[in-house]
Amino acid sequence: MSLIDRLTDELARLPGIGRKTALRLTYHLLKTSPEDADRLAEAIVAVARGVHACPRCGNYTEHDICEICRSPRRDQSLLCVVEEPADIGAIERTGEYQGLYHVLGGRLSPLDGIGPDQLNVASLLDRLGEGTPVREVVLATNASVEGEATTLYLHRLIAPRGIRVTRLARGLPVGGDLEYADGVTIVEALHGRREL
Amino acid sequence: MSLIDRLTDELARLPGIGRKTALRLTYHLLKTSPEDADRLAEAIVAVARGVHACPRCGNYTEHDICEICRSPRRDQSLLCVVEEPADIGAIERTGEYQGLYHVLGGRLSPLDGIGPDQLNVASLLDRLGEGTPVREVVLATNASVEGEATTLYLHRLIAPRGIRVTRLARGLPVGGDLEYADGVTIVEALHGRREL
Repeated sequence: MSLIDRLTDELARLPGIGRKTALRLTYHLLKTSPEDADRLAEAIVAVARGVHACPRCGNYTEHDICEICRSPRRDQSLLCVVEEPADIGAIERTGEYQGLYHVLGGRLSPLDGIGPDQLNVASLLDRLGEGTPVREVVLATNASVEGEATTLYLHRLIAPRGIRVTRLARGLPVGGDLEYADGVTIVEALHGRREL
Repeated sequence: MSLIDRLTDELARLPGIGRKTALRLTYHLLKTSPEDADRLAEAIVAVARGVHACPRCGNYTEHDICEICRSPRRDQSLLCVVEEPADIGAIERTGEYQGLYHVLGGRLSPLDGIGPDQLNVASLLDRLGEGTPVREVVLATNASVEGEATTLYLHRLIAPRGIRVTRLARGLPVGGDLEYADGVTIVEALHGRREL
């Protein structure tokens, strides 16, 4: 197999990268300087070898404990539960949340054989009982059927401990057209309507 | 800068890869095995360092002379002129063409300062005069204004040598809707209409 075919195959294995995009990227990389190609290759290897899950919250980190867990400036009594580490990035970019996180590592999905034991649920409950008392858990799963089921399940587990349990609001995405919103979203937006 | 940010930056420099796609790819690479990441990294480095232009036709190759130029099974009297090496791949995948290629390395574009001297035009004319006589040159530039201008320019240069000069047909793409085709394409399709 030629070097070009080999790289195209490797790139086409990435998610969302089809055969044609892989070819386009390969031809782009053919034109870049060897130094640029080296930098990209090194960054890939460094991430795959140097980054691991934070033992406390499950976020990706290259340190023993992730930056958020280590930070003395974060509110230790506020805990946001997300499905994946990527979700932390989405919330952090808003700059609006100052608490800690907990990564479930997925969502409940019985059809795929994913129950509470396959997720970081036990470690979540452990965290609620140790150190600074947690006063609120924000359940920030995806707004899918499975995400919703996961949120309801966690709510049932956590609420009896006397901790406030919230979830992200549902409604029209900002900039979204009412005309093109799906019915379920409109129903949620109606139910969640607020006084002006 | 964190390893994750570094890889995301590197990926976002690739064409057609925005910030969000770069992040998605980074999170994917975080989940792959170090061995898979190594293979991708090595393929990138190998292509950037091991692949160069064929001195005869300009196609990308990892050998002294590219596979197509070396093949004794290709029709040496048929020469297809393309803008970029990627175009060769597109034609080769059809399996319908058995001649040789010549890569111009771009198209005439006076506004960008690209004239015949910036393209592999001299080497094309040299090839027509040496070795097996070429009986037909297929001009397969892109169907853009610049590609068209390049084709007309090359036709003026080559035709006086008594060599047949052709270009790819223009018309409706297969599977294309007449309703959504642009006017120029429809005009070309009308002019090029054929008896059933």
